[in-house]
Amino acid sequence: MSLITSQKIHINKASSSRINDVDFNNLTFGSVFTDHMFECDFIDGNWQNPTIKPYGPISISPAAKVFHYGQAVFEGMKAYKDDHGKVFLFRPKENLKRINKSSVRMAIPEFPKDVFFEAMHKILELDKDWIKSGLGNSLYIRPFVMATQVGVSASPSNAYKFMILLSPAQAYYTGEVRVVIAQQYSRAADGGVGFAKAAGNYGAQFYPTNLAREKGFQQVIWTDSNEHKYLEEAGTMNVFFRINNTLITAPTNDRILDGITRKSVIAIAEKNNITTEVRKITVSELVNAAKDGSLKEIFGAGTAAVISPVSAFSYEETLYELPKQEPSFASEFKKELMEIQHNLTEDPFNWRYKVL
Amino acid sequence: MSLITSQKIHINKASSSRINDVDFNNLTFGSVFTDHMFECDFIDGNWQNPTIKPYGPISISPAAKVFHYGQAVFEGMKAYKDDHGKVFLFRPKENLKRINKSSVRMAIPEFPKDVFFEAMHKILELDKDWIKSGLGNSLYIRPFVMATQVGVSASPSNAYKFMILLSPAQAYYTGEVRVVIAQQYSRAADGGVGFAKAAGNYGAQFYPTNLAREKGFQQVIWTDSNEHKYLEEAGTMNVFFRINNTLITAPTNDRILDGITRKSVIAIAEKNNITTEVRKITVSELVNAAKDGSLKEIFGAGTAAVISPVSAFSYEETLYELPKQEPSFASEFKKELMEIQHNLTEDPFNWRYKVL
Repeated sequence: MSLITSQKIHINKASSSRINDVDFNNLTFGSVFTDHMFECDFIDGNWQNPTIKPYGPISISPAAKVFHYGQAVFEGMKAYKDDHGKVFLFRPKENLKRINKSSVRMAIPEFPKDVFFEAMHKILELDKDWIKSGLGNSLYIRPFVMATQVGVSASPSNAYKFMILLSPAQAYYTGEVRVVIAQQYSRAADGGVGFAKAAGNYGAQFYPTNLAREKGFQQVIWTDSNEHKYLEEAGTMNVFFRINNTLITAPTNDRILDGITRKSVIAIAEKNNITTEVRKITVSELVNAAKDGSLKEIFGAGTAAVISPVSAFSYEETLYELPKQEPSFASEFKKELMEIQHNLTEDPFNWRYKVL
Repeated sequence: MSLITSQKIHINKASSSRINDVDFNNLTFGSVFTDHMFECDFIDGNWQNPTIKPYGPISISPAAKVFHYGQAVFEGMKAYKDDHGKVFLFRPKENLKRINKSSVRMAIPEFPKDVFFEAMHKILELDKDWIKSGLGNSLYIRPFVMATQVGVSASPSNAYKFMILLSPAQAYYTGEVRVVIAQQYSRAADGGVGFAKAAGNYGAQFYPTNLAREKGFQQVIWTDSNEHKYLEEAGTMNVFFRINNTLITAPTNDRILDGITRKSVIAIAEKNNITTEVRKITVSELVNAAKDGSLKEIFGAGTAAVISPVSAFSYEETLYELPKQEPSFASEFKKELMEIQHNLTEDPFNWRYKVL
């Protein structure tokens, strides 16, 4: 890993704040950004010039490799403020580990841990007023890396830009989520980049997701590309199934993202003595469980969405509606997770990371 | 398709040319750009403001979706100048068709044909001095589209930028090409975006290609992601195999790019009464043919590379070196293709498109 040695983060403060222009009760996810952003360039084999500056456009060559070859990775994290004004991140070391794992697969140099955390502290301190307390409110944090070398030959870039953007957020999904089980399109190949938060994995899902939306579904649950037989993930969320009182989710592999919310849900389930099976689950098992009534819940788990209960799924043009569960695993996990995130309860797993 | 109605291309000429700074005998592929570039924005459901302006950096939000979700596609084309100063493109309608096919798969609006061709004519006229005559010289043309909507929610952009960059080029590969047959990593999934020139397809290949390079190979020949049994393509080139005097190449499918050089080679082979088989070919057939001496040639075909003869391949850690062929299919196809492209011979297929 290329380390920055003895370089302080340069801070160029915004002359005024845009915070008073923002209606925090009507936020569209990921569309409003705070006053500052972080950037750090990889040049001549080293990460250089870590800088916090006012959020705004960047100047970049149209021949930069990110535009042509999708050499880019990202992370999604959140900061939470409790009622006493303390600010926390949730398992941020996992995000750093994962962005570097994504970077390795995309031939991007890893980002140094010390600069990552110093940047988080400094930028959250500057923009702390953008983090609103109250359950469900958060500041969505988007670290990402892009290839900046000028050149349209298909080879790895020798220059990169690492950035952090901050966007105030309420809950990601409102309303019920209905999903389609993929039978034709695929998200990832064995031996591909599905496990990485590589930019191209997301754009590639837009078209099949649009087809699902036209039929009244919000998301696609992807299946393996070989046989469309095994349930994998939902693109922006990992997926859990409750059959009777057993919680089931697919094991991670090189096609499935190793979700931080996913592993937190598994840990909470185990703490609550819920039988949890991390194993391959077939579409036919799901359909049979829906038919015989043993399928109680499906829900997605991800940083942006936290927990999204699924109300119905479609497979082979048949719609399977799920019964309402009260109480549900989904609502219990969401409550426990959010209370830990917002410092409203004990933190038996040591997941909270205090920033301010 | 959203059409621009009655909008002329606005031209903002560069105040001076950089052409005298360029050493046209020492060009690194895709690293030098001409004086002008074309851009056109998709806003409010229409392509708007087609403009040719001086080549230079663009100002773009770091929250533009292209950086986060790889929603971007591109094309590769070339312009050629003959000894009388006439300028030609090679089968440009195929490139337009393909970028729009790529766009549909990536949920990007298609670009109108009339603006595409008007832009080509106008920008090539402005930068015609950058096209050098002489066999092997060309002007590489890079049309591409990127998602520009500001927002980090994983959904299709509502704004795009279509651009064309121009880069003077000599031959893409110099020296021999040695390839590795993929056994672990994959380029594309069934039901994925492998057939599209989607940006993320390319970045995803950099890491496994780096691993090959470390062992002294320049390219990877990708196999199917299910079994690694069938030979597919080489990422920036389609691949042809000559066994005895039969030419074999894989059929296109949703994992393999429908290469324009590929179909031109097939047409030239058929015109020359070379037995041509467009069929699945297994790795074991290739290995057996290499062992019994019936494998005479492997070569790649693509716009950037034209025809790249492969001198050796590696499979299961065994190196198979190919005999030198004189004359070879590869050199014959390259000669015929380039003579058509450079207006040095008849054009029985009607492939040349005169611009100037």
